[in-house]
Amino acid sequence: MIDAYRNTSKKVGMPPGSLIHVGDFNEEDTRISVIDYGSIDVEEPSVETVEDLLKFREKDSITWVCLEGLKNVEITELIGKYFDIHPLVLEDILNTHQRPKFEEYDDYLYIVLKGLSLGEEGVEADEFNVDYEQISILVFNDFVFTFKEWKDELFLPLIQRIRTSTGRIRSLGSDYLTYAILDSIVDQNFVLLDSMDERIDVIEAELLSDPTSNTLVSIQHLKRELINIRRSTSPQRELLSAILRSDHKLIGEKTHIYFRDVFDHVLRISESVDSYRDMLAGLLDIYVSSVSNKMNEVMKILTVFASIFIPLTFIAGIYGMNFEYMPELRWKWSYPILWVVFITLPVVLVTYFKKKKWL
Amino acid sequence: MIDAYRNTSKKVGMPPGSLIHVGDFNEEDTRISVIDYGSIDVEEPSVETVEDLLKFREKDSITWVCLEGLKNVEITELIGKYFDIHPLVLEDILNTHQRPKFEEYDDYLYIVLKGLSLGEEGVEADEFNVDYEQISILVFNDFVFTFKEWKDELFLPLIQRIRTSTGRIRSLGSDYLTYAILDSIVDQNFVLLDSMDERIDVIEAELLSDPTSNTLVSIQHLKRELINIRRSTSPQRELLSAILRSDHKLIGEKTHIYFRDVFDHVLRISESVDSYRDMLAGLLDIYVSSVSNKMNEVMKILTVFASIFIPLTFIAGIYGMNFEYMPELRWKWSYPILWVVFITLPVVLVTYFKKKKWL
Amino acid sequence: MIDAYRNTSKKVGMPPGSLIHVGDFNEEDTRISVIDYGSIDVEEPSVETVEDLLKFREKDSITWVCLEGLKNVEITELIGKYFDIHPLVLEDILNTHQRPKFEEYDDYLYIVLKGLSLGEEGVEADEFNVDYEQISILVFNDFVFTFKEWKDELFLPLIQRIRTSTGRIRSLGSDYLTYAILDSIVDQNFVLLDSMDERIDVIEAELLSDPTSNTLVSIQHLKRELINIRRSTSPQRELLSAILRSDHKLIGEKTHIYFRDVFDHVLRISESVDSYRDMLAGLLDIYVSSVSNKMNEVMKILTVFASIFIPLTFIAGIYGMNFEYMPELRWKWSYPILWVVFITLPVVLVTYFKKKKWL
Amino acid sequence: MIDAYRNTSKKVGMPPGSLIHVGDFNEEDTRISVIDYGSIDVEEPSVETVEDLLKFREKDSITWVCLEGLKNVEITELIGKYFDIHPLVLEDILNTHQRPKFEEYDDYLYIVLKGLSLGEEGVEADEFNVDYEQISILVFNDFVFTFKEWKDELFLPLIQRIRTSTGRIRSLGSDYLTYAILDSIVDQNFVLLDSMDERIDVIEAELLSDPTSNTLVSIQHLKRELINIRRSTSPQRELLSAILRSDHKLIGEKTHIYFRDVFDHVLRISESVDSYRDMLAGLLDIYVSSVSNKMNEVMKILTVFASIFIPLTFIAGIYGMNFEYMPELRWKWSYPILWVVFITLPVVLVTYFKKKKWL
Amino acid sequence: MIDAYRNTSKKVGMPPGSLIHVGDFNEEDTRISVIDYGSIDVEEPSVETVEDLLKFREKDSITWVCLEGLKNVEITELIGKYFDIHPLVLEDILNTHQRPKFEEYDDYLYIVLKGLSLGEEGVEADEFNVDYEQISILVFNDFVFTFKEWKDELFLPLIQRIRTSTGRIRSLGSDYLTYAILDSIVDQNFVLLDSMDERIDVIEAELLSDPTSNTLVSIQHLKRELINIRRSTSPQRELLSAILRSDHKLIGEKTHIYFRDVFDHVLRISESVDSYRDMLAGLLDIYVSSVSNKMNEVMKILTVFASIFIPLTFIAGIYGMNFEYMPELRWKWSYPILWVVFITLPVVLVTYFKKKKWL
Repeated sequence: MIDAYRNTSKKVGMPPGSLIHVGDFNEEDTRISVIDYGSIDVEEPSVETVEDLLKFREKDSITWVCLEGLKNVEITELIGKYFDIHPLVLEDILNTHQRPKFEEYDDYLYIVLKGLSLGEEGVEADEFNVDYEQISILVFNDFVFTFKEWKDELFLPLIQRIRTSTGRIRSLGSDYLTYAILDSIVDQNFVLLDSMDERIDVIEAELLSDPTSNTLVSIQHLKRELINIRRSTSPQRELLSAILRSDHKLIGEKTHIYFRDVFDHVLRISESVDSYRDMLAGLLDIYVSSVSNKMNEVMKILTVFASIFIPLTFIAGIYGMNFEYMPELRWKWSYPILWVVFITLPVVLVTYFKKKKWL
Repeated sequence: MIDAYRNTSKKVGMPPGSLIHVGDFNEEDTRISVIDYGSIDVEEPSVETVEDLLKFREKDSITWVCLEGLKNVEITELIGKYFDIHPLVLEDILNTHQRPKFEEYDDYLYIVLKGLSLGEEGVEADEFNVDYEQISILVFNDFVFTFKEWKDELFLPLIQRIRTSTGRIRSLGSDYLTYAILDSIVDQNFVLLDSMDERIDVIEAELLSDPTSNTLVSIQHLKRELINIRRSTSPQRELLSAILRSDHKLIGEKTHIYFRDVFDHVLRISESVDSYRDMLAGLLDIYVSSVSNKMNEVMKILTVFASIFIPLTFIAGIYGMNFEYMPELRWKWSYPILWVVFITLPVVLVTYFKKKKWL
Repeated sequence: MIDAYRNTSKKVGMPPGSLIHVGDFNEEDTRISVIDYGSIDVEEPSVETVEDLLKFREKDSITWVCLEGLKNVEITELIGKYFDIHPLVLEDILNTHQRPKFEEYDDYLYIVLKGLSLGEEGVEADEFNVDYEQISILVFNDFVFTFKEWKDELFLPLIQRIRTSTGRIRSLGSDYLTYAILDSIVDQNFVLLDSMDERIDVIEAELLSDPTSNTLVSIQHLKRELINIRRSTSPQRELLSAILRSDHKLIGEKTHIYFRDVFDHVLRISESVDSYRDMLAGLLDIYVSSVSNKMNEVMKILTVFASIFIPLTFIAGIYGMNFEYMPELRWKWSYPILWVVFITLPVVLVTYFKKKKWL
Repeated sequence: MIDAYRNTSKKVGMPPGSLIHVGDFNEEDTRISVIDYGSIDVEEPSVETVEDLLKFREKDSITWVCLEGLKNVEITELIGKYFDIHPLVLEDILNTHQRPKFEEYDDYLYIVLKGLSLGEEGVEADEFNVDYEQISILVFNDFVFTFKEWKDELFLPLIQRIRTSTGRIRSLGSDYLTYAILDSIVDQNFVLLDSMDERIDVIEAELLSDPTSNTLVSIQHLKRELINIRRSTSPQRELLSAILRSDHKLIGEKTHIYFRDVFDHVLRISESVDSYRDMLAGLLDIYVSSVSNKMNEVMKILTVFASIFIPLTFIAGIYGMNFEYMPELRWKWSYPILWVVFITLPVVLVTYFKKKKWL
Repeated sequence: MIDAYRNTSKKVGMPPGSLIHVGDFNEEDTRISVIDYGSIDVEEPSVETVEDLLKFREKDSITWVCLEGLKNVEITELIGKYFDIHPLVLEDILNTHQRPKFEEYDDYLYIVLKGLSLGEEGVEADEFNVDYEQISILVFNDFVFTFKEWKDELFLPLIQRIRTSTGRIRSLGSDYLTYAILDSIVDQNFVLLDSMDERIDVIEAELLSDPTSNTLVSIQHLKRELINIRRSTSPQRELLSAILRSDHKLIGEKTHIYFRDVFDHVLRISESVDSYRDMLAGLLDIYVSSVSNKMNEVMKILTVFASIFIPLTFIAGIYGMNFEYMPELRWKWSYPILWVVFITLPVVLVTYFKKKKWL
């Protein structure tokens, strides 16, 4: 169920730093895209091999290397070799079950977190499925690597901004780019939460009109998804507060305020998730009560029918007896009188029940 | 549902500092009102353009600029330009989904929090709707800006006090004005909580007299509203403790005690909200129990009727059988004796049930 | 419901420091009683006006001024004026909705907390009502003011002790008197908790013998009262730990250990309140289960009657049919045999049910 | 119910340091036993009066004075006088409602905590009753006093060890003795928890085989006892961490590691208590579900009987009607055919219900 | 039930440092295996007595001594003697009820934690049983001792790595070996959690298809196991953060990052355990609701049958009465018309019930 967190046992017993990709999704080939920019130009060279990247090291500009798909382990291995990255970091990049965290090394920073997006099927099948993608960010002085699990358009708006803008993003360093990347990833969560919000509204409407046992399954499904979302988003708080506390040379004074902004977003997401939790608990309460109310309704019908007709049947039963000496059987008005009883008794009972608020 | 917190996804993918107004309410034109006061005079000039404000910068007096309605983004933009405000702050002012917070800049302080007021419909429809308005405060040395989402009379009593008083408020600086503004906003919450208190009393009375499934819906509605109120009020605690810890030159030694007073109010609000939560949980327990009690009542009626008349019907059924050799059918006293049975049996059963406390 | 915390909205929009009394109880006239003592004499002068107090300032002895009833706002105002008390403190004294707190000023200390006592009606009506009285303490070098909401005998034992003792209390300063006052107020809570304990025992006994829906109401009532008690007592922890941490000149080294003693009491009260909470939750569980058990009982009666008599009625119904060709009707032993069936069938069914543990 | 914590209200209004014994148990006479030991000899003099103790002060050996029974207040008073103990400490020793705590004085340490033991009745009546005894420890340089509420054999193994051992305990100081005493008291809790564990197993077995409303009472009883145990054991954590943090001259460097060991035990006890809480909550869930399952069973019997026999009775009723024109009544095979119906219909219904998983 | 934590009461009253083995499992003989390695060679001498180990002290290489089975107390005693280990540490090694902890001594470090593995029976009987093994690690400068409760293959992959690798593990010191051992133990938990995850999926599928009271027992069983797992894993967090904070000479700068990696794993495990808790709570909710839904179903059948046939039986009863003057009895069409009633009435009722959503 919690795919994003399962199957790590595959690596048990391996030496630390063994570069094996641990992930659950159908793997795609690795795509490398590079954008190299300074305050003046933007270049988007096509890159085939890791060696092609080395020439950007001499340049003064910021180079952002985005790798999508983690199947080709050697690529990561080569980057590790050329850029002198600690083997544990490389291992964490490839093992997609990391807890969001921030680590400082002498020459670079390592950030890993989860990108959450609404699953395709989710939209169609009226279900709510979240895809969890691990995104690793390596920040060097004028190099930023991002490692994503699959190809999507998450960073497209940011890339557009780099291409067209001539403002802040182009003139500031790799720390500002890191901020912009984090911001893209974190803000995606708002889309998710809005959709969660709509889903809760739908379920609530369903609960008040016609709750079925499916509604319960939906609530539980959402609750579970929320548990997973929480596991991905709540460590982001720590992550960002660690960045804010850091005095690493790669995090400039000026970008500090931007990271604080992301931190605020993360806090808001985290509070939203908590309040959705409370709301789902409330929905469950309504569900349980409405089931119990429905049972009440059913019991009332039964009670009305039984309480009215059982006495009448008894009365009819009396005059169905075959005693020889039953004077009423011979009276002319017995039968009509009995009809009067048959009609008034239910009326009396129902009004009595209504008065007593039993019905 | 949580309108005050939704739809932020609109901005996803935008560069930071993009000045777009993100809000949910029918927008009104921006109204600018200015009050400029010193220990001697009060002036309330009518102001049309942002440039009109600049002349007050030279004056020694305190100038309070109150903007209501955020639709005209350019006004905020111009203020940002003339007063040299960080683009992220401007963005936060316009995006009305901020978490309450306090930020210090070299020349100014930025405070953002939520003003809570009881919605109009709420009063009429016997419902409890809270309107959440984001209020941003920018504090300069002798300038204070407040940005509100819509026009209302929240600050009227304070403005009156400035006009008429000749005491503290007129002689102290912009920090005291900030305190007075915060105090107005925070104290409004007490009105809300009193009204919440009354609503809880009404629901409790309803629960004890005649609980319907509507009562449950009311409880859930209140619970949800409380979750939202909590999200708005609980970060105010942090906000005020941040102000109290701050040693920014704009917060004077003398006003410290006033902020501490607001802090006490905020703590009290926060504790009230928590205890309302507990009370609502208690109401839910009563509701569930009372539904279950009602079911019990209904079941008892059914049981009484069934347990009494089913045996009687059986007895009547016996003497409705058509066997040739049924001596009782011919006895003269059978029928009257049976009537005795028909009458005593129920009496015996009912007294037995009562003794056993089943009824 | 939470009277002690409501209606503060009355003051919304007022300037800070406006001396208006905000309280809920039928107000009484203010009574001023003074006790002035040193290690040698005790004097209890009768005092009419605030000015009468001023002469005690020159004396070296400790003067304890106890004001009961807050209606005469001018008295408080005058004390404020003569003793140079901050307007916010005066406001807090008169507004009886304060959160317990401890504040240090240059020349004096301000302590405000709640005195809890069992309401009169409570004792009679077998209910549990708590009265919350706000008590403010102003501690000067050789002056102590206490402001109470109404007249009662809370401080009588302490006053007796001052009158008769020649020991510690007479020789130590205003800090020891403060300790003694706090101790009186805090220890009163134990009386309350003992009475709460008895009430819980009564409810538990009721639950095990004969739970009614009234029992539920009692549990909820107690739960609510406990929420309020908790709101009053839990901030006392902070209050006392603030006093213990304080290094104000008015709190002597020697009285420190006494405040620590009060702190221990406060901790114990706070833990008791928490464990009563847990116990009430347990009582609610028993209530719900016992309601459900009772329903089970009722259902069983119904089931026994229905399961036994419905088949029998069917059998009787068979031989009430009017077919011409029903050979059994003519047999001599049919009727007696059927009686055997009518008697053995129920016996068989009941033993079967018992064996299956259904009954 | 929480005897160990009740009735403290007796002392309300008393001056601090009034030496009155506040306790609930049938009091016993005070027994004083003394053991005086050094690395060479052990002496166990019989002691009648407090004055007899004084001669041990000159000796270099460690003297452990164990007082059992607190009725004779004068003994405690005299010890207080001769050993110069703060009146509040004496008061705490005699008032057996203390919260576990550790206090440092210039010449001595004061430790008070609860000794928990399984009550006598508990063992017999298959119930679980815990006796709470307050144990105070006064640690001087070469004197240790322990004050217990009643006479039991808690310290017997320790005394034996002092008598026979020639190792560490005999050569180390009063701090090591204090450790050994604390260890005896704390380790007794493990016995209690083991017995709690067994009790939970018994209840669980009962729940799975045959839950009665008695089972619920047992669960609640255990839950309550657990609340009390928790109140006694959880402050021990603070107590020991205070000892560990202390740098009082009476706590030697070398015994530090021993106190850390007790601290580990206390942590383990505290975690056990928490997990028993969770388990009891789980048992309650099973209870509620099993009651509800049983109700289901009963309802099913009713439903089977009613659904099968009510239609059959109706069919029999049809042919019990007295219409003149009912051709079936005259057919020869009507009655046998009806019997076929009477037999097949129930079979069909039951198989249908089974297929639908309703039964 | 909580075997890993029970029966410690066996040692109550013993002097600290008494070397008695306290454990629950069928004991095995102690097996000593030694692996001695440096960057060049690996040696695996067979060792019979503790004295055989002493010769490795002079060597520069790292010696890892792994003891499996704790029955032979003397072995541990001798190690304690030769390597000068504190008696309390020896006691902790032998008493298998320790809380995971990390302790620093002058010459060595002591780490104790729990190794969790899936019990054998668990796999077969479709149950989930966890075996808890206490593992103690003593870290010296070039010696590492591990004490395990029984023989298994937990460290086999690690030993293989030492044998074959020529990289980091062979060139780094005893701290890296300690890391590798901890990593093996901690990573085993992932296997457990994966299996827990599968078990939850199985239960959930069962719940949605056909919940029985067995399902409830399974849920409770898992919940209990989770409580125990939590008790073993959550103190590992403290343990590792203590290692990370430590500046003991035996923990090198270079291995710090490796311990941080284990710390991340421990955090992830701890979060997983928490989320499984939430999921189990969710499963319980579904169970309760599904039981209640099933009851509803049963009630509906009863209601349909009763509501339809009881009125019909009454009608049939009317015409079974024996009055002389019942004109309908003689009409030719009475009987056919009644059949029409008998058929239409149920149809009408069922459609009415369906419209009202009662069925």
